[in-house]
Amino acid sequence: MTLHATPASAGTLLDRYQSIRRQSFNICAPLQTEDYVAQPVPFVSPPKWHLGHTTWFFENFILAEQMEGYQRFNEALNYCFNSYYQSQGPRILRDKRGNLTRPSLETIKAYREYVDEHMSRFLEQYAQDGLPEDLALLLEVGLQHEQQHQELLVTDIKYILGHNPMHEPYQTDYTAVTSPEPAPLSFTQVKEGIYTIGHQGEGFSWDNEQGAHKTYLHDFAIANRLITNGEYMAFMADGGYEQFGYWLDDGWSWVQEQEVKAPLYWYEQAGNWWHYTMQGLQPVDPNAPVTHINYYEADAFANWKGVRLPTEQEWEAACRLLCQGIPEGANFVESERFHPTAPVNSQDFQMLGNTWEWTSSAYLPYPNYPRFKGALGEYNGKFMVNQMVLRGGSCVTPRSHIRMSYRNFFYPQERWQFTGLRLAK
Amino acid sequence: MTLHATPASAGTLLDRYQSIRRQSFNICAPLQTEDYVAQPVPFVSPPKWHLGHTTWFFENFILAEQMEGYQRFNEALNYCFNSYYQSQGPRILRDKRGNLTRPSLETIKAYREYVDEHMSRFLEQYAQDGLPEDLALLLEVGLQHEQQHQELLVTDIKYILGHNPMHEPYQTDYTAVTSPEPAPLSFTQVKEGIYTIGHQGEGFSWDNEQGAHKTYLHDFAIANRLITNGEYMAFMADGGYEQFGYWLDDGWSWVQEQEVKAPLYWYEQAGNWWHYTMQGLQPVDPNAPVTHINYYEADAFANWKGVRLPTEQEWEAACRLLCQGIPEGANFVESERFHPTAPVNSQDFQMLGNTWEWTSSAYLPYPNYPRFKGALGEYNGKFMVNQMVLRGGSCVTPRSHIRMSYRNFFYPQERWQFTGLRLAK
Amino acid sequence: MTLHATPASAGTLLDRYQSIRRQSFNICAPLQTEDYVAQPVPFVSPPKWHLGHTTWFFENFILAEQMEGYQRFNEALNYCFNSYYQSQGPRILRDKRGNLTRPSLETIKAYREYVDEHMSRFLEQYAQDGLPEDLALLLEVGLQHEQQHQELLVTDIKYILGHNPMHEPYQTDYTAVTSPEPAPLSFTQVKEGIYTIGHQGEGFSWDNEQGAHKTYLHDFAIANRLITNGEYMAFMADGGYEQFGYWLDDGWSWVQEQEVKAPLYWYEQAGNWWHYTMQGLQPVDPNAPVTHINYYEADAFANWKGVRLPTEQEWEAACRLLCQGIPEGANFVESERFHPTAPVNSQDFQMLGNTWEWTSSAYLPYPNYPRFKGALGEYNGKFMVNQMVLRGGSCVTPRSHIRMSYRNFFYPQERWQFTGLRLAK
Amino acid sequence: MTLHATPASAGTLLDRYQSIRRQSFNICAPLQTEDYVAQPVPFVSPPKWHLGHTTWFFENFILAEQMEGYQRFNEALNYCFNSYYQSQGPRILRDKRGNLTRPSLETIKAYREYVDEHMSRFLEQYAQDGLPEDLALLLEVGLQHEQQHQELLVTDIKYILGHNPMHEPYQTDYTAVTSPEPAPLSFTQVKEGIYTIGHQGEGFSWDNEQGAHKTYLHDFAIANRLITNGEYMAFMADGGYEQFGYWLDDGWSWVQEQEVKAPLYWYEQAGNWWHYTMQGLQPVDPNAPVTHINYYEADAFANWKGVRLPTEQEWEAACRLLCQGIPEGANFVESERFHPTAPVNSQDFQMLGNTWEWTSSAYLPYPNYPRFKGALGEYNGKFMVNQMVLRGGSCVTPRSHIRMSYRNFFYPQERWQFTGLRLAK
Repeated sequence: MTLHATPASAGTLLDRYQSIRRQSFNICAPLQTEDYVAQPVPFVSPPKWHLGHTTWFFENFILAEQMEGYQRFNEALNYCFNSYYQSQGPRILRDKRGNLTRPSLETIKAYREYVDEHMSRFLEQYAQDGLPEDLALLLEVGLQHEQQHQELLVTDIKYILGHNPMHEPYQTDYTAVTSPEPAPLSFTQVKEGIYTIGHQGEGFSWDNEQGAHKTYLHDFAIANRLITNGEYMAFMADGGYEQFGYWLDDGWSWVQEQEVKAPLYWYEQAGNWWHYTMQGLQPVDPNAPVTHINYYEADAFANWKGVRLPTEQEWEAACRLLCQGIPEGANFVESERFHPTAPVNSQDFQMLGNTWEWTSSAYLPYPNYPRFKGALGEYNGKFMVNQMVLRGGSCVTPRSHIRMSYRNFFYPQERWQFTGLRLAK
Repeated sequence: MTLHATPASAGTLLDRYQSIRRQSFNICAPLQTEDYVAQPVPFVSPPKWHLGHTTWFFENFILAEQMEGYQRFNEALNYCFNSYYQSQGPRILRDKRGNLTRPSLETIKAYREYVDEHMSRFLEQYAQDGLPEDLALLLEVGLQHEQQHQELLVTDIKYILGHNPMHEPYQTDYTAVTSPEPAPLSFTQVKEGIYTIGHQGEGFSWDNEQGAHKTYLHDFAIANRLITNGEYMAFMADGGYEQFGYWLDDGWSWVQEQEVKAPLYWYEQAGNWWHYTMQGLQPVDPNAPVTHINYYEADAFANWKGVRLPTEQEWEAACRLLCQGIPEGANFVESERFHPTAPVNSQDFQMLGNTWEWTSSAYLPYPNYPRFKGALGEYNGKFMVNQMVLRGGSCVTPRSHIRMSYRNFFYPQERWQFTGLRLAK
Repeated sequence: MTLHATPASAGTLLDRYQSIRRQSFNICAPLQTEDYVAQPVPFVSPPKWHLGHTTWFFENFILAEQMEGYQRFNEALNYCFNSYYQSQGPRILRDKRGNLTRPSLETIKAYREYVDEHMSRFLEQYAQDGLPEDLALLLEVGLQHEQQHQELLVTDIKYILGHNPMHEPYQTDYTAVTSPEPAPLSFTQVKEGIYTIGHQGEGFSWDNEQGAHKTYLHDFAIANRLITNGEYMAFMADGGYEQFGYWLDDGWSWVQEQEVKAPLYWYEQAGNWWHYTMQGLQPVDPNAPVTHINYYEADAFANWKGVRLPTEQEWEAACRLLCQGIPEGANFVESERFHPTAPVNSQDFQMLGNTWEWTSSAYLPYPNYPRFKGALGEYNGKFMVNQMVLRGGSCVTPRSHIRMSYRNFFYPQERWQFTGLRLAK
Repeated sequence: MTLHATPASAGTLLDRYQSIRRQSFNICAPLQTEDYVAQPVPFVSPPKWHLGHTTWFFENFILAEQMEGYQRFNEALNYCFNSYYQSQGPRILRDKRGNLTRPSLETIKAYREYVDEHMSRFLEQYAQDGLPEDLALLLEVGLQHEQQHQELLVTDIKYILGHNPMHEPYQTDYTAVTSPEPAPLSFTQVKEGIYTIGHQGEGFSWDNEQGAHKTYLHDFAIANRLITNGEYMAFMADGGYEQFGYWLDDGWSWVQEQEVKAPLYWYEQAGNWWHYTMQGLQPVDPNAPVTHINYYEADAFANWKGVRLPTEQEWEAACRLLCQGIPEGANFVESERFHPTAPVNSQDFQMLGNTWEWTSSAYLPYPNYPRFKGALGEYNGKFMVNQMVLRGGSCVTPRSHIRMSYRNFFYPQERWQFTGLRLAK
C-alpha cells in the first residue's frame, strides 16, 4: 500500500491539528447546551457525541497505542464514543446516542483538552525527525475524520433545529443576498476514450479513491451547472411526485410510504414554498441550487427531463477537464453561508462545493482497491454495498478536505446532507 | 357532580401553590442541564417537558380562560407542552418530546416565573371572598396534577440516569442503613359482607375514585406486609422466569420477547444481584420490598406462592380496617430515600407509601362514575381500558397526595414506576 | 373442584361425539380445497387447521394418555396442531399456520377418521359402567372445545371469503327475508341488591364461570334489545368516527391508525352501505342488529347515546330475570342464517344468540376461581388479562353450547366475531 | 430501439407458445392442491398465482390490446394477477397473494385454457405473413416472462415444501448419484484491455443487456469452477459466520439479526449437515456447488479466501473466452435434477447452469440503455437500484432462456434462488 499522507514537519502538523480541532468547537458556538444532546432520528448524532467520538479517535488509535504510559481519560468513554469499530469492543447502539446525557458537555470539553494536551506532548517528540510514515498516516486520518464530522455536525445541527417546532435559526447575523439568475442549462461534450480515474497526485487520499485505473467512457455530455430550485419546482408543479413513471420502484415506495411532496425542510404556505435554512425559515430562492433531495428524487428529476445522472467516472473525467483545481470563491464551509448559492458567472461550473452531487454509480471498490490495514480497514470498505456515490463536496465541507477524486456515499433514501444534482446525457 | 376541592382562603392557596411549584424544581436540583433533555423511551418524558407541561396546565386551563387580558408567554409552547388533550389542539407526538432542545431550560424557567407571577396576581383578586367553587377545583386539579408529575419526574430521572452507561447517582450524600429483617409473612382475615368503596370524606379526590358505592366481598385474607427482594429472589432461584405455568399468556410472551430475568434495574455480577437506585449501583437488600416489577411479574409471583393478588376493593377495605390514616414514618417522597424500605415494626403494614401495589382489578369506571366536565373529562375516563389498578402510593409520592381510595393505573407490562406487590388469598 | 360434566351413558356419549364431530365437516362443506389453507391475518386460522387441531385434542389428551397401546397417527402432527399448550411441547408459530400446505386435507380427513374410530373403540369399553368422572370431564371438554372451534370455523371462513376480491358467497341457496321494524328502544329497571353470579345448575360449565358467588348490584336499567344497523348508521352519520370525545384513548388511536369508518365488512357505494355476509355482498339492513364491531366501537356508541354498556354481572342478573331458558326461535347456528336477525316480537330480548354482547367488564377470575387441573389449566386462566367479557352467544354458536353464565372473551380491538351491543344505564 | 425478437413463422411460434405454456403445468404436476395456495413470505408467490399471472400477461398485453372483440375471462382477475405494473391499474398487495383462495386452481386452469385458445386463434391470423415486429417482440417477451416464472415456480415450491415441518420431497422417484471430487481450484488469467460487453448477436435479449459497449478491464484471473459445499463448510468451520472482519457492514447486521449459521435449507444434526433439496432432506454433498447463499455470504467467503468476486464485465468477458456456446450436459432445468452438480471434467467450467453466480456489480443501466417502450418499460429499468447482478443461469433455468449476456438481479440479502459463487482476483 502506498501511503498518501501529507509530508510535513511535526510543528506544522501540530498547528494543523490544533486549528482543525478548534474548528469543531467553533461550529458548535451558536448552540445552547440542550442542543448538544438530542438524536431525533438514528442517522443523526448529537453534537456532544461528535465532539466525544472525534476525540476518542485520537485517544484510541494514537495515544493508547503509541504514547508510553498514557492513561485513558475515562475507560467508560470507550463504550460511549466508539462508532462502529467492531474490532474496538462493545459500543452503545447507534440509535441510543441521544440518551447519553452523561458524560456532560463540560466533561467532554475536559476530555478534549486532556487528549489535545497529550497529543501536543506526543507530537513534540517528533519535532526534529518528523513522524514515521505509519503514524503520519494515522494522524492525517484522524484530522480528515474530524473534518468529516464537522460536516456532519452542521447537517445534524440543521436537522435538530430544523425539526424543532420553534424553527429558531443557527445563524442570526445573516444578511440576505439576491441571487443572480443563472446561465441557461447547457451541456459540454466529452469525447469517448480511455480515462484514468482515482487519486493520482500527492497529498492525502482515502483508500476508497486510491488505485488509479483506466476506464472506458463513451461520448457523453455534462451540464454546466447544478439544477436550481426553480427547475425543481417546475418538476413538482408538473406532478413529479405523483407520476410513478419517473421513479425507480424502491423510490416510488418511499414516496408513497412517506407521503413525500417536496425536498426535506420545505413547507408550503399559502401557495409559496419556504424552507428551513441555517438562517431560519426563508422563502425558497428559485436561482439557488436545489438541495436536500435523495437519490430517488435526483434520478426521478433526470427522468422527467429525459436525460440522466452522470456516472462517477464521467463526473471525475469532466471535472478534470473543466476545472483547474478548486476555483476561487467556491462555496465551502469557510464562506459561512451554510447553503448552496447561485453560480457567480458562466465559468462557475459549481462542481466543487455547494452541494454533493448524486451520481448514478453504486459505491463499490475500484479495481485493486488497497484497503487500509487494521482497524482502519473498517473505515470505508465495509460500507461498499447498497449505497450510491456522491461527488464534489458541499457548502459545509471544509475546503481543504475535498478532491476531484473524493468519493462520498449515502443510502439512496438519505437526504439530510446538502445533496443536489447535475444532469448528463 | 359534587366537588371535592379543599376549602381554603386564597392566601393559604397561594402558599400551597408556591410550595408545590417550588418542589418540582427541588426535585431537579441534582440534574445537569443535559439530563433535562433526553427521552430514552416513549413512556419517559424529559424533565424539561414535565416542567413546561405542568406550567402550561395552569396557563391554559386557568390564566388563558379566566384572567382578563392575559397574554400567553409564547403561543408555540402550546404545541410543545400539551400532553394528550385532544380538545386543546395539535401537539407534538409523545415519542418526539426528547427532540425539543428548544425551548431551553432557561426559557422554561422564565415561562414558569411568568406563569407563577400571573397566578399570584390572579389569586390575589380572591383574597377576601375566596375562590368560586369551579375555580377552586381547577386550581386544586392543577396542584394535584403537578404532584403527579413530581412522582413521574423522579421515576423518569431514574430511568434516564439508570440506563446511562456511567450509572452515576442522583443522590450523592447518602448514608446507607442496614435494613432490619421483616416479620414473617402472615395473613389477616377480613369477613365476608357488604363494604363501601370509593372516596367518602372531605378533601380533594379524582373523579375516578368518586361515587362511593357498596360492594360485596367474600371472606379473604391479606398479607401483613409487602413482598421483599429476598422472597422475590427465591422465586427467581426457583426458575420463576423459566416456568410458563406461573404466567399469564401475555406475560409469558413479554418474558420471552424481552428475555426478562429479573426486575428492572437489576444486574447480576459474579453471582450477586445489584440494582441501580437513586444512590447509584447498590447490592440488592433482601429485607427491602421488591420494586420495579410489572403486573405480569406480580401475578406470576403470587401464582408461584399458590395465592393471588388482592382486588382493589379488597385492598381498600383492608386498608380502612388496618390503618388509621397515614402512619407516622411512612416512606413517602418527603423522607428523601427514593427507595422502598423494610417495615419498622410489626404494626407497619406498608400499605401507604413504599411501593404502589398491583391489584388484580382492571381499571374501569365505578358505578355512577361522575366524569369531570369539559377538557378535564379527558383526565381519567378515557384511559379506562387495558390498564390495571395500583393502590397505596410509593416512596416518591408526595405524602399530601395519597388517599386510601386513590386509584393509580398502568399498563400490565410497565415497571419503571416504584411498583411492588402484596399477597391475598 | 366440583366437576360439571353431563352424566350420560357411554352410548349416548358416542352418539353425541359423532354428531358434534360430523358438524365440523358440515360447516366446511361449501368450501373449495384452496379455502382450507389460507390465514389472511394471525388471529384467523385456516379451516384445515381447525379440523386438525380439534382432532389432536382428542388424540393428545385422551387416546395418547388413556388408551392402551394407542399409536399416534403421525408424530409430526403434534407440532402442527398444538395451539398454545406450552406443556404439550413445541408448536408452529401462530402466524405460520397458513404455510402448512401439508398435511393435506385428505390426510387430515384420514386423521379424523383414525381418531374417531379409536375414540369409538375406546368409549365402547365403558358401555356398561359409564365413564369415570375425570374421563367424562375430559371428553366433555373435548366436545365443547370442538363446538367453540365450529364457531371460529364460521367466522374464519367469513374472514377468508370476505377479504377475497371476488367476494363470493359461502351460502348460495339463500332466500332473503324482509326484517320487521324492531320495537322502540326501552329500558327495564333492575333493583339494587345482592345477586348470585356464575354457573349454578347441573351440566357442563367452564372453570371460568364456576365459583358462583354473591355480588352487589346498584339500581340499573338494561335495554330491551340489541342496537340495530340503523341506529349505528345514525352514530356514523353524526360523525361518530371523527369525534375523539366518544372514544377511549386506545380506541381513538385504533380509529386513527386504521382509518376506520364503519364496522368490519362494510363498504360504501354511491352513498349506500353494503356489507359482506355469508350470502355475499348485501345492502345493510337497518332493522337487523349491528355486528362486527369491537369493544371500542361499542363503548363509543354508548357514550354517544349518553349511556353505557352493562357489566357482565348486570347482564347475567338481567338475563336470569328476563329469560326462562333459551327462547324458542333464538338465532343460533342451527338456524343456518349465519347473520343476526331483527327481533321477532317485543318479548324477544335477543339476549341469547344473534350477537355476542360486549360488556364493560374485563376478563378476570371470579372469587375462588377453581382453575382446571393439568394441561387444561391453560384453557382459560392464562388469558385473564387485557381482554373484555362478551355474553350471550351468537348466530353461529351451537345452541347446546351456550348458557346464561357463559363467559366469552376477546381483545378490545377484535371484531371479526359476530359481536354487537346492548345498552344499559 | 433495435428489436431482438426471434424471427419465426407463426406456426413455429404457436408450437413454442404451447410447449412453453405446457411446461408451467408440468412443473406443478407433483403438487397437491393445497400447495398452490401458500405464500410463506412476501417474496415467494403461491404457485396458483404464477399460473394466473403469466396468463394475465398474454391476456392483458396482447389479447385485450390487439385481438378484436376479445372479452376478458373475468375482469376481477386483473386485480389479482397484475404483479407490479403501475400503469395497468390497482392490484393486490404483494404480501397478500397467499390469501387468494379464490379464484380456485380449477378456475385458473380454465383461465389458462381460455387464453391459450384465444392466443391460438389470434396467432393463426399471421400464419401466412408472419408477425409484425412489435407483436413478435411482445409475444417473445411473454414467453421469456413465462420461463422466468417457471424458475420462480421451482424456487417458490422449494420454499413452501422446504419450510413445512413435514419436509416432504417434491421429486420422489430420484436415484442418488455419487459426485466425483472436483478438480483443484485454479485461476485462468485474462489480459487487460478493451472488451465489448452486452448482447451482440441475433435472438431475443432483454433491454437491460442491450446497448453492447466497450469497457476497460484490467488484468484479472477467474476460477475454473464454482465453490463447493466442502469449501464452504471449511469457511463455516473456521468461524466464518462469527468474524465480522469478513463481512460487509449490512451483511454483518443481517447475520446478527437473523442469527445465520449456514446457507438456507441447511440443518445440523449430530454434527452432520443436511439440507432440504427437491428430493427431501439429504446429507450435504461436499463435492457439489454450494447454493442458497446471498451476496453477503458470497462476498464474505471471498474475503475469507483473500480474493474477491468477479465484476459482471469480467464474468462476461471470461465466459466468452472459455465457453463456446452452452456446453453439452450443462445442468439446466431440463436435466430434472433441480440441484447443482459437481463438474463432469476439468473442461466443465460450470459458467452456464448449476447456480446463478453473484457478481460484485450493482444492477445499473448500461451506457445508452434502450429501455423498452410503454408498460414493458416497467419490466427491468425501474429495478435498477439496490440490487446486485447475477450471471449464468441455474439448474432450474430453462436452457433456451439463458445467454452469456443475461443479467439477473436480486437484493443482496436474498438467497432462496439457486445462487452460488465463483472467485476472481
